[in-house]
Amino acid sequence: MELKNDRFLRALARQHVDRTPVWMMRQAGRYLPEYREVRGQAGDFMSLCRDADRACEVTLQPLERYALDAAILFSDILTIPDAMGLGLYFETGEGPKFRKTVRSEADVAALHQPVAERDLDYVMRAVSTIRRELNGRVPLIGFSGSPWTLATYMVEGGSSKDFRHVKSMLYGSPDTMHQLLDILAHSVTDYLNAQIRAGAQAVQIFDTWGGTLSTPAYREFSLSYMEQIVAGLIREHEGRRVPVILFTKNGGQWLEDIAGSGPDAVGLDWTTELSDARARVGHKVALQGNLDPNVLFANPAAIRAEVGRILDSYGEGPGHVFNLGHGISQFTDPGHVDAFIDALHELSPRYHNQIAMG
Amino acid sequence: MELKNDRFLRALARQHVDRTPVWMMRQAGRYLPEYREVRGQAGDFMSLCRDADRACEVTLQPLERYALDAAILFSDILTIPDAMGLGLYFETGEGPKFRKTVRSEADVAALHQPVAERDLDYVMRAVSTIRRELNGRVPLIGFSGSPWTLATYMVEGGSSKDFRHVKSMLYGSPDTMHQLLDILAHSVTDYLNAQIRAGAQAVQIFDTWGGTLSTPAYREFSLSYMEQIVAGLIREHEGRRVPVILFTKNGGQWLEDIAGSGPDAVGLDWTTELSDARARVGHKVALQGNLDPNVLFANPAAIRAEVGRILDSYGEGPGHVFNLGHGISQFTDPGHVDAFIDALHELSPRYHNQIAMG
Repeated sequence: MELKNDRFLRALARQHVDRTPVWMMRQAGRYLPEYREVRGQAGDFMSLCRDADRACEVTLQPLERYALDAAILFSDILTIPDAMGLGLYFETGEGPKFRKTVRSEADVAALHQPVAERDLDYVMRAVSTIRRELNGRVPLIGFSGSPWTLATYMVEGGSSKDFRHVKSMLYGSPDTMHQLLDILAHSVTDYLNAQIRAGAQAVQIFDTWGGTLSTPAYREFSLSYMEQIVAGLIREHEGRRVPVILFTKNGGQWLEDIAGSGPDAVGLDWTTELSDARARVGHKVALQGNLDPNVLFANPAAIRAEVGRILDSYGEGPGHVFNLGHGISQFTDPGHVDAFIDALHELSPRYHNQIAMG
Repeated sequence: MELKNDRFLRALARQHVDRTPVWMMRQAGRYLPEYREVRGQAGDFMSLCRDADRACEVTLQPLERYALDAAILFSDILTIPDAMGLGLYFETGEGPKFRKTVRSEADVAALHQPVAERDLDYVMRAVSTIRRELNGRVPLIGFSGSPWTLATYMVEGGSSKDFRHVKSMLYGSPDTMHQLLDILAHSVTDYLNAQIRAGAQAVQIFDTWGGTLSTPAYREFSLSYMEQIVAGLIREHEGRRVPVILFTKNGGQWLEDIAGSGPDAVGLDWTTELSDARARVGHKVALQGNLDPNVLFANPAAIRAEVGRILDSYGEGPGHVFNLGHGISQFTDPGHVDAFIDALHELSPRYHNQIAMG
């Protein structure tokens, strides 16, 4: 099956494209009325994730509205701990929660490592359904949370403001912390490889909470496990490179370390300037980002100005995938996303007039 | 009145000291049982702030327990918007809230700029009472929130996860945003100068939410107003330099800009490595920080190891004020703070054997 639009994969390989490719983190989500309708039919969030046809339907919704260059599997970053039996659930207006927490050496020892193709088969069914329905229109991105990010939710039992419990484990019982992260690194590797075999053409690791660590703790407890995962991933499938994107929110201070851990691309939030990031690591990796999703609350002229500023910051030539610096807000006006994508399509070709440098 | 312990002021001036001075953000706080007792007598948090004798009492409490090298005024960062009539209040388990929000050009135009010595006289009474009771034991630090940080609470009406309303104003109505920030910058300058006249011997500006901005937005909407304040402050009083510390949480990527805006010192959270920060801006400013407050949940040996690592990261010579990278958690065991201070007193003298380089 021929890929009809390979801008996203070409940009990740730092090859020439006609315009800067774009997708949005959480692009299939609550800001879309058609999503809210399907979500209402499915019941709760996890039921929607577990229903391959509906998960496929909501994955494709943003592609119907906007000329996006990639689809991303509709799922949650916390499916692995859920498959470990911790009982993931969502309460309205609050983040994800677990019925059980993991706080002691005994809790860690009692965890069973899921086998992705058996214990997370609903994810693989969604991947293969989406891939079939996409029919080569754009590539499909698979994803997982990073070991450290999964661990924060497992230890805290949900979202946290201060990460008190997980950092108590990190500083007070580093061996237990490493045991937990090691189990998670193996699970994530297995999970992402299963997604690749099921049809994911690129994968992204979301390290949402790595940026809450000190520099040495980030290296030891977050990045080293992502590096282990990257080293264990299938990097070629169906005769094509399967690129890996690492995204550590608030990781701008550690770009050299992240780029050095083996990914094809590094995702950036909006606090890092693309010109600076490109100067530091652009010879090694592609860069993905980095519009503050809150810019989408402004008027179309302001959105266009900020899109232009970001394109200008990256500058001419290949290696840039446009994205938000974090998931799109549920309160976003879908019409403002049109303004964003239109501005990008209009403004970005001028940055790609040159013959590929890569 | 002679200052009996000037380590803190000497370190801020990058002069030789015998050991690294230390204080803790939020050192007078809920982790101390003696604080909870006085807080219970006072009623709510703002009543405690408004009672000069009790505010003085809780300011001095941590100095009785620990050999700290500075006191910090017991107050809140949001006293200025409260004096503007927005109605600051606190609900148990939640952050600060305002009864009124500021969201339109008309809302901004209707704000009256408080005159600190009249409208915030309770703060000045607390400063002079504390200063008198300290009797030269250690210097007293005054403080304020930064204009951007005050604006986030005023526009959102309280704490926020995504800063949706204030960023809508920033990107959608930048002129209104600038008007609000300009009023706040003038108010903060007046407020800090009043604290200095009342007896504050150093001042810190807390930019808690500057780190949620893009690089150009940080420069335009947060740092430029802090720079304006720094330029307007009384820098010498009672025959002594009044140093200014700027602390932008998650501002590690912008250290050069922050150091270039005129402060004596830059406060760092734990995500920035001191060795890196010193190499980048240590020739210009002193550095304050940066233990992750969550380290205090670990055992004394782990606390000691992390204190040692941070001292080592800064290295030998003057210009380092030890602190946490954020306020101490209410759940901290006061005995673990002993372990922290003891470790610092034991380990830090070896970094100050040289004759002052500054």
